[in-house]
Amino acid sequence: MITLHHLENSQSFRIIWLLEELNVPYELKVYARDKKTMLAPEEYKVLHPAGTAPIITDGDIALAETNAIVDYILDKYSEEGKRLRPAKDDKNRVPYLYWFHSGQGSLMPMLLMVFIFNSMTEKTPFLMRPLIRRVTQTAATFFPMPRIKKLLGYMNDQLEENQFLAGDELTAADIVTSFDLMTIGRIKLFNFQRDYPNIATYLERVEAIESYKKALAKSEK
Amino acid sequence: MITLHHLENSQSFRIIWLLEELNVPYELKVYARDKKTMLAPEEYKVLHPAGTAPIITDGDIALAETNAIVDYILDKYSEEGKRLRPAKDDKNRVPYLYWFHSGQGSLMPMLLMVFIFNSMTEKTPFLMRPLIRRVTQTAATFFPMPRIKKLLGYMNDQLEENQFLAGDELTAADIVTSFDLMTIGRIKLFNFQRDYPNIATYLERVEAIESYKKALAKSEK
Repeated sequence: MITLHHLENSQSFRIIWLLEELNVPYELKVYARDKKTMLAPEEYKVLHPAGTAPIITDGDIALAETNAIVDYILDKYSEEGKRLRPAKDDKNRVPYLYWFHSGQGSLMPMLLMVFIFNSMTEKTPFLMRPLIRRVTQTAATFFPMPRIKKLLGYMNDQLEENQFLAGDELTAADIVTSFDLMTIGRIKLFNFQRDYPNIATYLERVEAIESYKKALAKSEK
Repeated sequence: MITLHHLENSQSFRIIWLLEELNVPYELKVYARDKKTMLAPEEYKVLHPAGTAPIITDGDIALAETNAIVDYILDKYSEEGKRLRPAKDDKNRVPYLYWFHSGQGSLMPMLLMVFIFNSMTEKTPFLMRPLIRRVTQTAATFFPMPRIKKLLGYMNDQLEENQFLAGDELTAADIVTSFDLMTIGRIKLFNFQRDYPNIATYLERVEAIESYKKALAKSEK
């Protein structure tokens, strides 16, 4: 049985959701962040050499990295192409691959950069702050923001035709990517309703899914 | 037949290498960067809504995102588990998943952040530069650098036992990740020989592979 080591307020929410959606048995261990540094506690970091959230253990295996864990769980519990990961010959395979990989390979890294820029500004002493804000905002305007906008625009167009990112059924691409979208909405980086209305409707659809609601309840305990 | 749209000095080198290693027919179109902005030219950006390198086209399909393209090509040309992507029941499947996904999901994003920090410092007017350098270096020390070090340390340990990242044969995880390592070596972020000797030996092993050498020759034309 898989144990999910869930670091609070972290990407590992997605793995809870995946396990709930697959309806398989698992153990959930929740770890609080260090109150001062907001980093993972020592007992979390020793679970895996990379020490990043999420981490699962399964017998002798310890595995980190969101998409590696997603593939591992689907290998174990989802018959080829039956659930959440379209098979090679499925017409939804290509959009699945794009959104599954771009979630972690493009959207998350760009978002992370925006977070780090904001945090750099906030941590700068008051008098220097306007200068640092200008420099980080210039960098954000040059690099992550246009990339995020292009991705969201593309996604919004795709969701004109499909209920979910890869066709009309939920896949692991949605589980990985919609977490980023919720984050974008929460920090008000964009107003989805106004700027990307299909994404807004899509997120309402996601929030109505039973496994999503269950995962949310479990992660917030 | 797949057409690889190769943007010079970009991540798409890895796709040339993958195609050379699989020894399948493909067309290579090379695009020069804009001399002033160093960004992709307009005719590249219109190939795919995301506009990021690499991009492949194959009949009606246009696909971006390194790991999505890797999976697409392996779907098409590599029999399940036969070449470059260990099958579900292979003992190398778990390390494969970890290194394949962490290359794009962790190592590349952290490296990118280091690049952006350096570029922010360089682009700042001379008088302000020491301040901006201090702020970006503090941020790098806090966020990307410890994560890069942990990953490289873990990788160095793994390479004590294995010839490649997932066992003793080349996989797509090597093709994706060793590009980042070469970049780290080139910009002298670390001295592999001194700090991570198994990675240094591994990179020599990679550089001796025929398909790698062919890919390098083609990408530098």
